[in-house]
Amino acid sequence: MDDRKALIALNDELSADEDPILLPKEAGQASKAVQDFGRYQSEEPSTSAAAGRVAPHISGNNHFLDDDQPPLLGDNSLPPNIPINGSAGSSNRNINSSEPIFHLRSRTAAASTPNYESLDYEVCENTLFQDEQRKRLTERFSLRKDIIRWIIFIQIGIITALIACTIDIIIEELSERKYTFLYNSVKKNVPLSDAADGSDLLIPYLYWLLFSILPVAFGAAMVTYIEPITAGSGIPQVKSYLNGVKIPRIVRIKTLAVKAIGVITSVVGGLAGGKEGPMIHAGAVVAAGISQGKSTTFVKDFRIFKAFRDDHEKRDFVLGGGAAGVSAAFGAPIGGMLFSLEEAASFWNQNLIWRTLVASIISVFTLNIVLSAYHGLNDFTFTGLFNLGKFDTPLKFDYFELPIFMLLGVTGGLLGAAWNSLNTKINKFRKRFIPWKIGKVIEAVVVAMMGVTLACLMIYFINDCRPLGNDPTNNPVQLFCEDNEYNAVAALWFQTPEATVRSLFHDPPGSHKILTLALFTVVYYVLSCATFGLNVSLGVFIPTALVGAAWGRLLAMLTYYAFPQAEFLHPGKYALIGAAANLGGVLRMTISLSVILMETTGVETSFFFPLIIALISAKWVGDYFNEGIYDTQIQVNHVPMLTWEPLPQYKGLTAREILSSPVVCIKLRDSAHYIYQMLKKCDHNGFPVVDDVSGDRRSEGRVCGIILRSQLIVILLKSLYVENKRFWLPETSIQTFRDVYPRYPSIKSVRKLDNKINYTVDLSMFMNPSPIRVNPHDSVPRIFQIFRALGLRHLLVINNENRIAGIITRRDFIYK
Amino acid sequence: MDDRKALIALNDELSADEDPILLPKEAGQASKAVQDFGRYQSEEPSTSAAAGRVAPHISGNNHFLDDDQPPLLGDNSLPPNIPINGSAGSSNRNINSSEPIFHLRSRTAAASTPNYESLDYEVCENTLFQDEQRKRLTERFSLRKDIIRWIIFIQIGIITALIACTIDIIIEELSERKYTFLYNSVKKNVPLSDAADGSDLLIPYLYWLLFSILPVAFGAAMVTYIEPITAGSGIPQVKSYLNGVKIPRIVRIKTLAVKAIGVITSVVGGLAGGKEGPMIHAGAVVAAGISQGKSTTFVKDFRIFKAFRDDHEKRDFVLGGGAAGVSAAFGAPIGGMLFSLEEAASFWNQNLIWRTLVASIISVFTLNIVLSAYHGLNDFTFTGLFNLGKFDTPLKFDYFELPIFMLLGVTGGLLGAAWNSLNTKINKFRKRFIPWKIGKVIEAVVVAMMGVTLACLMIYFINDCRPLGNDPTNNPVQLFCEDNEYNAVAALWFQTPEATVRSLFHDPPGSHKILTLALFTVVYYVLSCATFGLNVSLGVFIPTALVGAAWGRLLAMLTYYAFPQAEFLHPGKYALIGAAANLGGVLRMTISLSVILMETTGVETSFFFPLIIALISAKWVGDYFNEGIYDTQIQVNHVPMLTWEPLPQYKGLTAREILSSPVVCIKLRDSAHYIYQMLKKCDHNGFPVVDDVSGDRRSEGRVCGIILRSQLIVILLKSLYVENKRFWLPETSIQTFRDVYPRYPSIKSVRKLDNKINYTVDLSMFMNPSPIRVNPHDSVPRIFQIFRALGLRHLLVINNENRIAGIITRRDFIYK
Repeated sequence: MDDRKALIALNDELSADEDPILLPKEAGQASKAVQDFGRYQSEEPSTSAAAGRVAPHISGNNHFLDDDQPPLLGDNSLPPNIPINGSAGSSNRNINSSEPIFHLRSRTAAASTPNYESLDYEVCENTLFQDEQRKRLTERFSLRKDIIRWIIFIQIGIITALIACTIDIIIEELSERKYTFLYNSVKKNVPLSDAADGSDLLIPYLYWLLFSILPVAFGAAMVTYIEPITAGSGIPQVKSYLNGVKIPRIVRIKTLAVKAIGVITSVVGGLAGGKEGPMIHAGAVVAAGISQGKSTTFVKDFRIFKAFRDDHEKRDFVLGGGAAGVSAAFGAPIGGMLFSLEEAASFWNQNLIWRTLVASIISVFTLNIVLSAYHGLNDFTFTGLFNLGKFDTPLKFDYFELPIFMLLGVTGGLLGAAWNSLNTKINKFRKRFIPWKIGKVIEAVVVAMMGVTLACLMIYFINDCRPLGNDPTNNPVQLFCEDNEYNAVAALWFQTPEATVRSLFHDPPGSHKILTLALFTVVYYVLSCATFGLNVSLGVFIPTALVGAAWGRLLAMLTYYAFPQAEFLHPGKYALIGAAANLGGVLRMTISLSVILMETTGVETSFFFPLIIALISAKWVGDYFNEGIYDTQIQVNHVPMLTWEPLPQYKGLTAREILSSPVVCIKLRDSAHYIYQMLKKCDHNGFPVVDDVSGDRRSEGRVCGIILRSQLIVILLKSLYVENKRFWLPETSIQTFRDVYPRYPSIKSVRKLDNKINYTVDLSMFMNPSPIRVNPHDSVPRIFQIFRALGLRHLLVINNENRIAGIITRRDFIYK
Repeated sequence: MDDRKALIALNDELSADEDPILLPKEAGQASKAVQDFGRYQSEEPSTSAAAGRVAPHISGNNHFLDDDQPPLLGDNSLPPNIPINGSAGSSNRNINSSEPIFHLRSRTAAASTPNYESLDYEVCENTLFQDEQRKRLTERFSLRKDIIRWIIFIQIGIITALIACTIDIIIEELSERKYTFLYNSVKKNVPLSDAADGSDLLIPYLYWLLFSILPVAFGAAMVTYIEPITAGSGIPQVKSYLNGVKIPRIVRIKTLAVKAIGVITSVVGGLAGGKEGPMIHAGAVVAAGISQGKSTTFVKDFRIFKAFRDDHEKRDFVLGGGAAGVSAAFGAPIGGMLFSLEEAASFWNQNLIWRTLVASIISVFTLNIVLSAYHGLNDFTFTGLFNLGKFDTPLKFDYFELPIFMLLGVTGGLLGAAWNSLNTKINKFRKRFIPWKIGKVIEAVVVAMMGVTLACLMIYFINDCRPLGNDPTNNPVQLFCEDNEYNAVAALWFQTPEATVRSLFHDPPGSHKILTLALFTVVYYVLSCATFGLNVSLGVFIPTALVGAAWGRLLAMLTYYAFPQAEFLHPGKYALIGAAANLGGVLRMTISLSVILMETTGVETSFFFPLIIALISAKWVGDYFNEGIYDTQIQVNHVPMLTWEPLPQYKGLTAREILSSPVVCIKLRDSAHYIYQMLKKCDHNGFPVVDDVSGDRRSEGRVCGIILRSQLIVILLKSLYVENKRFWLPETSIQTFRDVYPRYPSIKSVRKLDNKINYTVDLSMFMNPSPIRVNPHDSVPRIFQIFRALGLRHLLVINNENRIAGIITRRDFIYK
């Protein structure tokens, strides 16, 4: 700090009422080392997760003054009329550069990583907002808002379920046709019970390839060229959104359409993935769409639900939508709600749980009615959905099985951790070596082909024939088997992954060879690992459950061969435990997973105990090695997500050591020109508002509020100046600001201030007058708790005299 | 404000280095109207729930200056050496009075209502704490702390289950003996199948009376004379504790002992109550006890778990203990965890859920093993516990039954709301007219006698004989019935309420007359209403479920008589739905209740849907009329519990309108004498620490921290003065302060400062340097959110110059 010198002080010619010349600041003014036109962390296009980040506890507050930092503000071509208190070790700083100005704490800013913004979960209680609140103090208004909120949640449940039904039915119909065609083709081309003559399997193989390549290529192309955000399961994105990170385009209608088509094509194409993750994303989009009462994509404003147009309200609806999506995907209402709570929700209260549950229930109910009608069940009996097949005989277990369940859990944890690590490596490789769009599509096709080929090889080489009558599939493939037999390997492959899970849970004992299951486990493990991360819309739940069910069943069979007297080794039961263990190892969820598995298989509540034993063991073991796959994905994508607890690296640090400074401030009454120029030159999103400023030394003023970039732009766009107050004052309300939500115009849309160049903006009406403030000596764990609990976007660090010392945003808590 | 005048300014002769004389403050200094030795809201012995409270939006900040306020500080006999900036409209204020000094917002302070303090959920991050943190930065330490935390949670699960087992087994054994004796007595005294000759029933009736009166009187006397806090279910108290209200003696070992004996005696005595609520309380006590590693009651410090000795850590353990208690009471681990989340937890995070779940599971597991051993089940099959009996045939339902379930829900909501309202009225009556301890015991005995008498009358007058062989009870009472018949009325009464619920769920159709059930419903409804609120330890869950099961079964029977073709009217199913509806109407929980009912009856997950339909309808209808019984109890007891949302009355208000001022401040370096005198004269619990003070105008200093009363007392006790710093500095750590937790010594235990009267205390090392501060113009909903989310105890309201404007505590958000 001590070597810091103010270098530049230019006259702001436009604001004539202000002290035109700033004196150079004296060295050693550490406590007031706050300058205008700095750049703070949140708005860096670089992510703090970039390599080479200087550890805060090493560099302290001086880290951006390190000598090896490239002088980003090298040239001195300042814009003529902006007052600058520049400050930097030995280099002049320049706001005119389109490059980031400061790179706090991240010296190598990888330009390719996306620039995530925060959402405004904090309600800006400015004068306009309070005016509105006062008008709406009546009991009637708040009751009406409550009722509308309920209506929206119910709508979310219904529409999410309808979309889920549509996806379900299309996948079912198309898969049915595909596999029936393949079945017939096999029947026609493979001579019955002949010696294995491979050439005859070639034609079905080619058909199979075709039916895989076509949809996968179509789906991958849609995702890659139209909406890349739809790749993957969508759960990490929804989770990040709910945490307060703005993921661009995540809740748009176009995203929903691409996601739906993407998931249908990939599942029909036979990729190792499920429809569950995408359905959760679909629910989130539905929720965000309905709750806003307008669609920006279709430029249609229904003029309803206006009161819910802010990030804070939308967040709650999105949580409900996610829960409704899970519920619709699994037919599991409690599971859906718990999933939202355990995995997705970062903020939580009792009423929200309550509404989320209702959305989940409505969703399951709708789904049940529609699917019942589709399947022609006319007796109107609520059956539950049991996507993974109902266990008809209650599953029992003995105490001595508990250690076995625990061992299965440990196995699941190890396999899951390995899967996560392998998948992450594959994805890193992918990112590095397949940058082109066409390459991504080709890659998806290659993985699909690989799957088909491996399946065909397995069918071809393994001779696993089982007597008919005991067969669990609809289309028993005879292939090379005797009459009255079917091929058990083909039975595993000739259906969607979800149906295979069902088979593994419910096939009678002795349906598979050990070799079949062992190979199937290995192949599917590798395939699913290669698939998750492709540019297709696919969830990870079903393939993970499938792998787990396969090895669970396999282990039960192996043990049974070793100890034939062990009659408790019901293969379906162990398949279920294996699925739970593998899911626990990969996803690291516990409560919601066990409830979902219970709800989708209809096992008794007493069987909750073995499930949770397996899940807990899997989670503990897995957590020793790495994080769950969703969190890993979030990290890999450099999403600045706030964890539940502050990172251990931050223990012992204080606010002073992580804050970003200098901070760009605005005076309570500032010139329109200054604001306009400032917005053009820097892309921060929050500016402390100060008064008690001598001249242009804004950064030394007393903090009296904070204002968002979006608000400033609206002020400029609508010309809300002091000088023409009489024109706009009567009709300006908080709604003026809400109308542009959520796609705020950029500063470029503000036409050049020519005649209004001398006008003044009075922020007292617009700013948030009560930002949360902390002291520089506050500990990081404590400010993290405040930041996290209140869902903040900007946290001001002030000194004892209420003057700004720095600003802390989301990124400052992300260490890597 | 404007008429405020400073009245008194005395010289603090002891602190010679300070400006000895204070000038009277000028009128109109509103923004600095902060005076020493005021009294703020939290510490009022009166509760804000007292009648006649002035609405904040009417009285604003001047409410305590109302003319009709009694001049509590009437006399002027100030202690000689204390500097006072007193201020009050027309009355002098005096800190020497042992009476409360100000009565902000509550003009009629009912002296009888208890004075609840807040818990310190906020971690005081003073220098000592930070020193400790720095020493413990190592990975190893935090891992060790984590492991210990897990061990404690597992211990909580085990011990809670053992206590629950003990209670369970004792109740079962004693009840069995009691009812067998009565059965034999009836058999001996009532002539078989004779004409009804009442006199013969007299002897069993008298025995029955005796077996009710004795245990109930004993239990009631225990509760009344030894530990009155154990009365009732304990859930409201645990809920308040978790919300941050210090309920005296709630988590002591003595409380646990009295509660356990109390619940055994009351259930055995036949009162209309269950053991579930008390078990939750027992779990909470166990958790609080174990986690502290010491017992103040037995003056035993095990010198373990020292790091967990603060309110913040203890809270999380108590939540786990509550969950373990529910789980043990019902054999429902998910239910237990959800119950904690839905009903009890005010603060929440993912890790906590996770630990709570493990405690619940361990608890159910232990319970299952012990009870299996007790019942002589040697096959080690995990059965679940199914306290309410397992439905052997899966319950099915049709869509057209959903409106019926909804109607049942509405009925439950109405009956529940009526029950709550009636119970509240009875308890108010009770409080008013039965103030004496002996009266409370007699009342409990009278209610017990009433129950026995009503039961006997029912048995005597209703002739409901059913053929044997179809009988669901162990001891079929023949009474006035033919041979091979048993008396269905006696069957309902001759067992514990829990067993009766089981009967109503599982008795085959046609086990009861309509008249029997109708009368039973009415009698039990009234009885349970009269019982909850007696000075006995009893929960409300079982009687509520019992009433619901009775009317649910009754309605199914009635409908079946009207439409004999309606075969779906399985009485057990409707009893279950009725129980759910009634529970929803009384308790207003939804998710946890449905899961608990599912787990205790082993119904399939698809039956979750009807349960939740009934619960939701019941909750919505009930919420229209009043609050759930636990919240009602909390309100009636004037516990300052923070709701999830700010109360609607506070909308549109700002901090200025609810803050309490003047505030008693302490200088950063203040004299020991001042602190001692101040602590003697006022009983606030938090004091802002200020510097930049001119003379003794402490209230005008700049806020630099806050210090708790308990800390100040420790400082005085341990003589931590500047002057003798060299003696204590090396061995003083945060542990010095933790050692006295949780029973802080009072100021009376500090011996008179004679030789140290001139010593100085430097608070910079002890105070919390980063209290949360808000502005006077911040809206109340916003500061409520901050206060709630961060679990604060004191919230400082400061002006732009960082000088104190007032203080806000828990009570300021409680309006009534």
